[in-house]
Amino acid sequence: MLVVMNAQATPEQIQAVEARIRELGYEPHPIPGPSRTAVGITGNAGTEGRDSLRLMPGVEDVIRVTVPYKLVSRETKQEPTVIDVNGVRIGEGGVTMIAGPCSVENEEMILETAHFLRDVGVRLMRGGAYKPRTSPYAFQGLGIEGLRLLAKAREETGVGIVTEVLDVETVDVVADMADVLQVGTRNMQNYSLLRRLSRIRKPILLKRGMAATLDEWLMAAEYLAAGGNRNVILCERGVRTFADHTRNTLDLSVIPVVKHISHLPVIADPSHGTGKADFVPAMSKAAVAAGADGLIIEVHPQPARAMSDGAQSLNFDAFRQMSDELQPIASAVNRRIN
Amino acid sequence: MLVVMNAQATPEQIQAVEARIRELGYEPHPIPGPSRTAVGITGNAGTEGRDSLRLMPGVEDVIRVTVPYKLVSRETKQEPTVIDVNGVRIGEGGVTMIAGPCSVENEEMILETAHFLRDVGVRLMRGGAYKPRTSPYAFQGLGIEGLRLLAKAREETGVGIVTEVLDVETVDVVADMADVLQVGTRNMQNYSLLRRLSRIRKPILLKRGMAATLDEWLMAAEYLAAGGNRNVILCERGVRTFADHTRNTLDLSVIPVVKHISHLPVIADPSHGTGKADFVPAMSKAAVAAGADGLIIEVHPQPARAMSDGAQSLNFDAFRQMSDELQPIASAVNRRIN
Amino acid sequence: MLVVMNAQATPEQIQAVEARIRELGYEPHPIPGPSRTAVGITGNAGTEGRDSLRLMPGVEDVIRVTVPYKLVSRETKQEPTVIDVNGVRIGEGGVTMIAGPCSVENEEMILETAHFLRDVGVRLMRGGAYKPRTSPYAFQGLGIEGLRLLAKAREETGVGIVTEVLDVETVDVVADMADVLQVGTRNMQNYSLLRRLSRIRKPILLKRGMAATLDEWLMAAEYLAAGGNRNVILCERGVRTFADHTRNTLDLSVIPVVKHISHLPVIADPSHGTGKADFVPAMSKAAVAAGADGLIIEVHPQPARAMSDGAQSLNFDAFRQMSDELQPIASAVNRRIN
Amino acid sequence: MLVVMNAQATPEQIQAVEARIRELGYEPHPIPGPSRTAVGITGNAGTEGRDSLRLMPGVEDVIRVTVPYKLVSRETKQEPTVIDVNGVRIGEGGVTMIAGPCSVENEEMILETAHFLRDVGVRLMRGGAYKPRTSPYAFQGLGIEGLRLLAKAREETGVGIVTEVLDVETVDVVADMADVLQVGTRNMQNYSLLRRLSRIRKPILLKRGMAATLDEWLMAAEYLAAGGNRNVILCERGVRTFADHTRNTLDLSVIPVVKHISHLPVIADPSHGTGKADFVPAMSKAAVAAGADGLIIEVHPQPARAMSDGAQSLNFDAFRQMSDELQPIASAVNRRIN
Repeated sequence: MLVVMNAQATPEQIQAVEARIRELGYEPHPIPGPSRTAVGITGNAGTEGRDSLRLMPGVEDVIRVTVPYKLVSRETKQEPTVIDVNGVRIGEGGVTMIAGPCSVENEEMILETAHFLRDVGVRLMRGGAYKPRTSPYAFQGLGIEGLRLLAKAREETGVGIVTEVLDVETVDVVADMADVLQVGTRNMQNYSLLRRLSRIRKPILLKRGMAATLDEWLMAAEYLAAGGNRNVILCERGVRTFADHTRNTLDLSVIPVVKHISHLPVIADPSHGTGKADFVPAMSKAAVAAGADGLIIEVHPQPARAMSDGAQSLNFDAFRQMSDELQPIASAVNRRIN
Repeated sequence: MLVVMNAQATPEQIQAVEARIRELGYEPHPIPGPSRTAVGITGNAGTEGRDSLRLMPGVEDVIRVTVPYKLVSRETKQEPTVIDVNGVRIGEGGVTMIAGPCSVENEEMILETAHFLRDVGVRLMRGGAYKPRTSPYAFQGLGIEGLRLLAKAREETGVGIVTEVLDVETVDVVADMADVLQVGTRNMQNYSLLRRLSRIRKPILLKRGMAATLDEWLMAAEYLAAGGNRNVILCERGVRTFADHTRNTLDLSVIPVVKHISHLPVIADPSHGTGKADFVPAMSKAAVAAGADGLIIEVHPQPARAMSDGAQSLNFDAFRQMSDELQPIASAVNRRIN
Repeated sequence: MLVVMNAQATPEQIQAVEARIRELGYEPHPIPGPSRTAVGITGNAGTEGRDSLRLMPGVEDVIRVTVPYKLVSRETKQEPTVIDVNGVRIGEGGVTMIAGPCSVENEEMILETAHFLRDVGVRLMRGGAYKPRTSPYAFQGLGIEGLRLLAKAREETGVGIVTEVLDVETVDVVADMADVLQVGTRNMQNYSLLRRLSRIRKPILLKRGMAATLDEWLMAAEYLAAGGNRNVILCERGVRTFADHTRNTLDLSVIPVVKHISHLPVIADPSHGTGKADFVPAMSKAAVAAGADGLIIEVHPQPARAMSDGAQSLNFDAFRQMSDELQPIASAVNRRIN
Repeated sequence: MLVVMNAQATPEQIQAVEARIRELGYEPHPIPGPSRTAVGITGNAGTEGRDSLRLMPGVEDVIRVTVPYKLVSRETKQEPTVIDVNGVRIGEGGVTMIAGPCSVENEEMILETAHFLRDVGVRLMRGGAYKPRTSPYAFQGLGIEGLRLLAKAREETGVGIVTEVLDVETVDVVADMADVLQVGTRNMQNYSLLRRLSRIRKPILLKRGMAATLDEWLMAAEYLAAGGNRNVILCERGVRTFADHTRNTLDLSVIPVVKHISHLPVIADPSHGTGKADFVPAMSKAAVAAGADGLIIEVHPQPARAMSDGAQSLNFDAFRQMSDELQPIASAVNRRIN
């Protein structure tokens, strides 16, 4: 940390800051300048004592220098983390495709989708049994019956299952069935849920909060890692901005930046990122070109009949065409779609 | 809803949209114009079928006309909701002051604060026993011991207790002790928690999500109301924007707008809204002038020693001075601080 | 500035950074820490050389410590700047009311408004002769004829005139007539215009850019001051965020923060800040309570007939009522409306 | 437009709205519903009268249905606009590369860059002679001397020149030299400048305002087209959000959406979009994969010595490597880099 004194700070105020830093167990390094003095601090981890310094007389600001995450940082572990899901290796240099409907609606549609995905080479299926919905009056998912249908789809087709877990109560039942547990954007800072999930062994797909900075997102991943579960897949799904031509603003720049500062795999969700099926293929290609380790795409046999998120779901034909178009993009960045 | 056709839409496409609207059980009202046709829809509640229409050929957009919330709307209930907490009536035309530390740290500080508050006439104390922290390595609150200390403070001083509930598991224990249960900004769309809280009788202080639109916030309140708990106090605590001179951007304009469209009381949290103690008094006055039904303020016996949020906490002297300055503001808008 | 090395930086890389700092003419202050080294820099003003350091091997980040503005900073000049406009002293502890229509539409309406304002004690009138409009097909203002009508209104009633200047070409003609020249939100970073305005003597009302940080806003004011015109009135008019219940998000917290770091007066524009006449009185009161040195309010004889911004304009009755309600708020913060 | 009445609106209020619509010269289409009535309006272009309706008793909201731009809309002109610059055809299906330094600093560096670009096949060079800088104390560009150096570089190498025009005064001198005139993000809504540029024949590169919605951006292009200059190239350069891991948030989703609703070419600026050279290649690839008609990239012989924007400039080696990597991406979307 660095304590910046204001231009009028007295020598006594600067000495008091130095004394307080020593009291906190750290080392002060005064840096006198022409218009003001700054005091560097070494020996500290995190931001403990930051507030106590900021409130001292003569202090203008306290600036954090070190990053707040440890286990998920590339400074701690240089080699990329690879996560194995039913033999699909996420983060090993391929582009992992995850696809499926927003919600599991009934047996017929989920089986039809699973068969379709297997036929086009997709090995991981998404599908919500428990749905977080803005309205209490909207369809909330089939719950345990949805999980049963997903298990049946896996049994019939061999696709691995990615499904959302909404709360601590259902962690066990979801973890029992799913191959990957998804934490949604609204739960990224649900620390009770993260702590509970840190104690299971299944991989976690951690969506970025819709207003989360990169640091906050990585801190959420740090909760999982600190509790013992380092199998975390990050997922950019669009952030909230003033822009209104898409449902969210898909922030693809976060992909190369995550790669730079963390060893965790990162995928993109262009379906939620745009909210409109027409624009999903272009943004899928962009995400792969930006270096994403995978994509999660909403696909539905009949989007116009979907019980949720129909507007952003591809139908089978559109998905097949997009898959074909993604292959050369993946090749162009020396990756294979898996 | 209103379906807007694009300029090239054919008569057949328009007829198909009308047919689909009838199939959904609603009534279509075509409105032909010089450059394009729109089709009004009546008889619908909510947005069911919206996606199915948006995906039809020739459709440019589908616009929602009616508001999505019902029970919390002023169109449903004209008179303001008044919530009684230990005899303090929130939303009845006064300005209710809630104050206290970010976290309960130990018995001494919480008792000292409770006594101070009682002495200056504040009848509701805030204080966190369970804390949502960005870092897994930061102080997470005293938990059940914190609740016990809050109960002791109430017993000694008579102040009512407002404290945060983080998850479904602790709802019972928190509800057992607290007078008002606070739902934090990160949990505003934690629907499992909201549903659980909708079944208790204690009032809920529902903070606005840091990136929540007004509609989304009211829909979160609707979850509580729809489940049976209409004792909801809304709390504006700042939203996330590009502005970096404060910790969050306190959106006071939401106060008169909430008053206009909802019957629920709404208070402001200038401590989180600004993140800096220096600016809390000015924004507290502004909130009262804007028509807030109350304030929730962080106060600490020694902010520089606080285990969390010290930089935004007032010390006792500053709080007392601010309280004095708030009185004439409250009078100016024909309210009394209670 | 502070150069933060990454955890893997070698001693040679650190030495190279120190050498480069000396080459730039500054003094390096290495601060070795347990996980990484930082190098403080003294003797620098501004951010020259920042990029050259950031690009060196082993450098993680370069952090600016000093503020970039000088003349408008309270560190440079402690006493508040007071601006005299036709005898109205802005920034001297009063609340200066500026009111009037969005656009000058015709002689009748502008004279009617000027007489009304004089009668209710408002001494400065706003009114646009040159209008920045989002659409090229919308009414663009009466131009020079509008200025003539404003001059006539001043002659008849004695109100001072605040009007917008859009470009360098019209600076002379606007400056010749106006008492205060307004720079709109879209022109806050129109540096050619700012430089030209820095060379006139009339006061400038500088609106905050709709996505401007506080630093950027003060830097725009610094352009004016650096060129010789220190008569700058800052005006918060709402910023652009995701929130959609108001036209912009009025960021009142900027008022006490500006007061803290600058000596310039700052006023608020609740008309553009909310975009809806219904919410202007509440936010006007809030702005005064927050410490604003004034308000700029849209008033129109017949808002429903206004050629621009009718939805956010108060009619005369509403304005008169609001003025009455503002008096006790101003008193409560020890100010008088002038 | 659609007028939404509130639930308590009386029949008289609805009739008054219908009467007002007829008075405005339009046709009302009442749509009675179970909870409220809406009134569709046909025959209107733009939003004239919108405010007058919104302010009527019983009116809840007025919703715009038609888009506000005409000439730049794909509904008006289906085939894409192709812009020829020195034989480089922008928008015809290729990926046009524009590269060069932020500022022209001296003859040596600009000639060196021009020769380099020609050698690697880039035919359009960017370079600023007039620079908009946040600080009045920062380097403001070489001005007319910079233009002269750019002309010399073109003469020696044949590269076309893209350079920024800051104000009306310098339009003639810049237009005289440049092949494409760039309007920067801070000037996107400088309507005086747009109107002046609409009367020249040279193509305009119109950067998106940093807080501009898509509609506002297209309306700025409409200013140019309405005045007579339809040679507009749109350029996404990142928008302002809360995210702090990049300088701006590059909103690539705007590319396919622009393609959908406008016939104008659209390019991307990953240098300003990210602010960090390390992330430019990944975002350049993403932009091409998303369907961009071109890229504008900052390149400098010695980024660490650049007088502006060094941190986001590629050196020659990095640019050459990125160009090589872009070829297969362009091929994958059936485009050629030109």
